[in-house]
Amino acid sequence: MQEKLLGSNLGGMTENRTTPDAQLPDARSIHRLLGGRWADLREEFTEQVRRLDFPATEDLSTAQQRAVTLGLLEQVAATGAPRVGFDPAYGGGGDHGASVAIMEVLAQADLSLMVKSGVQWGLFGGAIAALGTDRHLGRYLDPMMKAELLGCFAMTETGHGSDVQRIRTTATFDPATDELVVHSPDPSARKDYIGNAAEHGRMAVVFAQLVVDGRSHGPHAVLVPIRDENGEAAAGVTISDCGRKAGLNGVDNGRLMFDQVRVPRVALLNRYGDIDQSGAYSSPIASSSRRFFTMLGTLVKGRVSVAGCAAAATRKALTIAVRYGDTRRQFASAGTAEESLLLDYPAYQRTLLPALARSYALHFAQEQLLVDMDRILHAGDIGEAVDEVAQRELETRAAGLKAVGTWHASATVAACREACGGAGYLAANQISQLKSDLDVFTTFEGANTVLLQQAGKGLLTHYRQQIGDLDPIGMVSAVAEQILSQVWERTAGVLIQRTRTLGNRESELAATRDHRWQVALFADRADRLLHTLAARIQAASKEGVSPGEIADRTQNHLLRAARAHVERVVLETFVATINGVTDPAVKSLLVQVCDLHALSEIERDASWFLENGRMSGAQSKAVRDSVDQLCAELRPHAGLLVDAFGIPQEWITAPIVAVG
Amino acid sequence: MQEKLLGSNLGGMTENRTTPDAQLPDARSIHRLLGGRWADLREEFTEQVRRLDFPATEDLSTAQQRAVTLGLLEQVAATGAPRVGFDPAYGGGGDHGASVAIMEVLAQADLSLMVKSGVQWGLFGGAIAALGTDRHLGRYLDPMMKAELLGCFAMTETGHGSDVQRIRTTATFDPATDELVVHSPDPSARKDYIGNAAEHGRMAVVFAQLVVDGRSHGPHAVLVPIRDENGEAAAGVTISDCGRKAGLNGVDNGRLMFDQVRVPRVALLNRYGDIDQSGAYSSPIASSSRRFFTMLGTLVKGRVSVAGCAAAATRKALTIAVRYGDTRRQFASAGTAEESLLLDYPAYQRTLLPALARSYALHFAQEQLLVDMDRILHAGDIGEAVDEVAQRELETRAAGLKAVGTWHASATVAACREACGGAGYLAANQISQLKSDLDVFTTFEGANTVLLQQAGKGLLTHYRQQIGDLDPIGMVSAVAEQILSQVWERTAGVLIQRTRTLGNRESELAATRDHRWQVALFADRADRLLHTLAARIQAASKEGVSPGEIADRTQNHLLRAARAHVERVVLETFVATINGVTDPAVKSLLVQVCDLHALSEIERDASWFLENGRMSGAQSKAVRDSVDQLCAELRPHAGLLVDAFGIPQEWITAPIVAVG
Repeated sequence: MQEKLLGSNLGGMTENRTTPDAQLPDARSIHRLLGGRWADLREEFTEQVRRLDFPATEDLSTAQQRAVTLGLLEQVAATGAPRVGFDPAYGGGGDHGASVAIMEVLAQADLSLMVKSGVQWGLFGGAIAALGTDRHLGRYLDPMMKAELLGCFAMTETGHGSDVQRIRTTATFDPATDELVVHSPDPSARKDYIGNAAEHGRMAVVFAQLVVDGRSHGPHAVLVPIRDENGEAAAGVTISDCGRKAGLNGVDNGRLMFDQVRVPRVALLNRYGDIDQSGAYSSPIASSSRRFFTMLGTLVKGRVSVAGCAAAATRKALTIAVRYGDTRRQFASAGTAEESLLLDYPAYQRTLLPALARSYALHFAQEQLLVDMDRILHAGDIGEAVDEVAQRELETRAAGLKAVGTWHASATVAACREACGGAGYLAANQISQLKSDLDVFTTFEGANTVLLQQAGKGLLTHYRQQIGDLDPIGMVSAVAEQILSQVWERTAGVLIQRTRTLGNRESELAATRDHRWQVALFADRADRLLHTLAARIQAASKEGVSPGEIADRTQNHLLRAARAHVERVVLETFVATINGVTDPAVKSLLVQVCDLHALSEIERDASWFLENGRMSGAQSKAVRDSVDQLCAELRPHAGLLVDAFGIPQEWITAPIVAVG
Repeated sequence: MQEKLLGSNLGGMTENRTTPDAQLPDARSIHRLLGGRWADLREEFTEQVRRLDFPATEDLSTAQQRAVTLGLLEQVAATGAPRVGFDPAYGGGGDHGASVAIMEVLAQADLSLMVKSGVQWGLFGGAIAALGTDRHLGRYLDPMMKAELLGCFAMTETGHGSDVQRIRTTATFDPATDELVVHSPDPSARKDYIGNAAEHGRMAVVFAQLVVDGRSHGPHAVLVPIRDENGEAAAGVTISDCGRKAGLNGVDNGRLMFDQVRVPRVALLNRYGDIDQSGAYSSPIASSSRRFFTMLGTLVKGRVSVAGCAAAATRKALTIAVRYGDTRRQFASAGTAEESLLLDYPAYQRTLLPALARSYALHFAQEQLLVDMDRILHAGDIGEAVDEVAQRELETRAAGLKAVGTWHASATVAACREACGGAGYLAANQISQLKSDLDVFTTFEGANTVLLQQAGKGLLTHYRQQIGDLDPIGMVSAVAEQILSQVWERTAGVLIQRTRTLGNRESELAATRDHRWQVALFADRADRLLHTLAARIQAASKEGVSPGEIADRTQNHLLRAARAHVERVVLETFVATINGVTDPAVKSLLVQVCDLHALSEIERDASWFLENGRMSGAQSKAVRDSVDQLCAELRPHAGLLVDAFGIPQEWITAPIVAVG
């Protein structure tokens, strides 16, 4: 099957390029590398999804699009693939990484289908699996996996989308009837933007403040039927429709209000907090705040999935735009008759190729995240002791990569649209749909700015632990200054070493392509931003500035530090991946891709490196010139680099790049 | 009427702000200033458009949206306002600036309506008015202004969107029948993306290579009926539909193919090239290339209009996002019970306030462009000799501002969507529609990258003329080096002068707010980029590099130079506008807005200023800190600054900012 798949996906796409060089890798080799640990599964599932019937939806009403997407969801369920991430004891495949990998395949095919699948199997099913116990798993997992029981994940409220710890829905235990009473006390407590709620969901995992015997134990999840067998709203449940959205109109987002809705006590998803038959609350985690964040931590898969799916859809947009630029001609040079290909223009290369390189970089970071997530979740499954440091690092990385990756997705797809001109604006050419569908990825599963802040706070905590178990505010103390000067010395060393090699333009350009130099710059920037952040916090704290005011004053700094950390991780992962590649042709091409990625990022933030004496003006100019040079060098291989994404031809329906 | 308008638009919007300070301007004063020369007309037309019936279109099919927009177009026609820009001899108002100002009003109400109006009165009507003579004006202007005759502007072809001089449609004179034969020789010659073509247009201004007696005279415009009285395609005309688009679905874009379609010789819009009764071609302009660009030059109004309309729609998105940020709360600071307003977060301020400041800056530049365009077009109307330098400068500025302004529009509206979170993604909250409608503004009326290149080439031409009438390639010569060193000295002077004032952080921050310093930086950057560009072109030329290769090597440099020029014009215009303001409260607020705009731009391009020794690292940090500080200073006035846009309340239907 694999040969067949690769033959049909990857063949025939090279006609617009120069004759393949003997030293060039073929798209298959790179495609297998990109597939990573779950390469076989990805290819197998891709084959299954290719057999689904995707009707054109571009001019359908919202109601029609929802019906189409529901039909596709049921076809996906019929493949059995959604079982892959669930507990084998209940008919699942027990493979967490695989469950994200199949979502990434769906994202290449249809983002409404991917999001509805994510709601059903990732959020709804995932919450039952992670927060429930045998009494829920035994009853609900099978119909959920089969999509016979469609459900919602009802966390976000109208008044609380980011600060979900402060949701206002309550679930109050009534010992008289052994029930939980789920209630929305005011309009701001309305559950909002809930996928599957407007039409198809029968049940919802509702997050509510759990109140037992007059005392609140913080947010817990409760299974609440929201519709009866006939699809009518259940008693006490008011459902409304979010209506038309910018995109993803195949997903029925809605709103839920609960008026004293009663469910049995055992509807509580009770892995991290339970009420026993006597009506007593108990939890393995004493702090209600820590308990809630532990629950959220088990749901990390959703965030990882969103990042991976945004990346997959971005690769599709890049495939279209690069192929268009490789066939579309406009303007002739003075004195020549034939018009030039768009991709031969340096400005066009600048628009697409650094974004293409960054997509490669983010992909390898995502694959590593997936492998690590899989390991940690699997360790939990088999009852190993939780490695809290690894767990927190995973959450920090997932939050950071989700933010940085979905911003990249939005920016890249917008650039692809513009690169394809008026053709890019037509629905038939797919990019506009990708753009409007992807737009909300920067918001859902955590607004990017909030996530990046969380990642930054995670780094500060880690930093504190390295320095010693001090108070987070007072963590810097005398030690910090010492570290700061060490960093300065290290950097100065790197700079000087580089500077020595600089003489003429050629050696300056060559020097920018030293991965050790790039990694040192990235690492130093991340360190330095974190150290100075900690120092500012400490200084303000010593002056008696309130924590709120400190947070405000350092918010932009915190975001920069978090972003610098993510960039460091991405580059380090890319370099490590390249080091593991044995095929010299693949390796050599990826080295150029990695250079373009790293130098584009250095260029983007050149002012920081210059301000802080990390680069000279001449180096900064050399970086810019190297980006131009790398664009020109990679231009002949741009088609190969998108072919290697291996997106099936039938999912690239855009007439502007139609084959044959 | 004016009082009533202002009362209803601008009152009642201050409730979420701190109590007005005695020294603060009111929104009315700023609104009048923004209205500029056509303030009264804008307000009067706004009142008329408020009376139109705008149905909700968010979940309508493409066909339904087109019908709605056609109905609105007819209502606009009934106001008589579209007459304002046409020749008084044929029932017009003779006011070119006003004709753009009314489009900007429509853009605040509904972008599909604005674009369809732009196609009808700006492109179709504008082409007849600018390129036709009495035989066309007398017959077509009146029904065109009344929207009884709906028409198209058919320039773009499938194969030629940017390089329109190379369109392939032909109009061949047949002396035997005294007709022109309009023909599409191959599929790439198909007219594409043509507004009004898919459904409503009866006639098209078709651009075609005019062939007389076997000789081509370059592109000319010919009036061609494309549909008969029953709306059926005319004989020989094949019409197809571009279908669903990302946005602007109220506009029926289509495609036209001509199979030997015959029209009378007098259908040629013959102001710049004519065929007489004997079949002889004549033109007041000998060069066919220069003739075509002269024709395009008369159509500059369209480009000016697109920039102004994108700006108007961007102000609407900013109005929604700023008001949302001023009412929406999320997260509480440690130790406080009340949650904070989004706009109190520095990261949120960073997202919106520099964009708001830039919208002010671009607005004043647009108003100045409008005034200058009006003057130059009016001079042509009354038969004054053409000031070619002024004309070319206007075209350069219009091209540059269109590119920079529509990129700002796309980026700002995307930021507004994200700032409003999930709510911003719902169609009901308007931003997503603005985003998808505005998306193509970076492409139509000239793709931005191409326009910015044109602007850059215009600057090079002007530069050459200043240096002396040398060959464009050889223009630098010995003089350039001399100028370069002068610039360096001037800049060094500025830098040193600034550096002297720097001592502690406060004086450093204060120094960044000197408009003379900012303007000097902007002017120097523009000069320097242009000079070095010219020098590179000359050096490469001396080495014998081919013109095409030179163009490739310098393309990114050319784009940077053009952009720097536009930024310089924008800042200089803003500073000049402020100097003309007499109200001290308005002036003082605008000074802050201008500072935020200028310093954000310096920050964006800080690496250039650092690399080239125009700023020290300490100054660059001070610029960043000043941006943060200005965001905090302007935050209390953000509501006032968007109220001053004066967008009627009934056009801000978004429930997230609903009033009352």
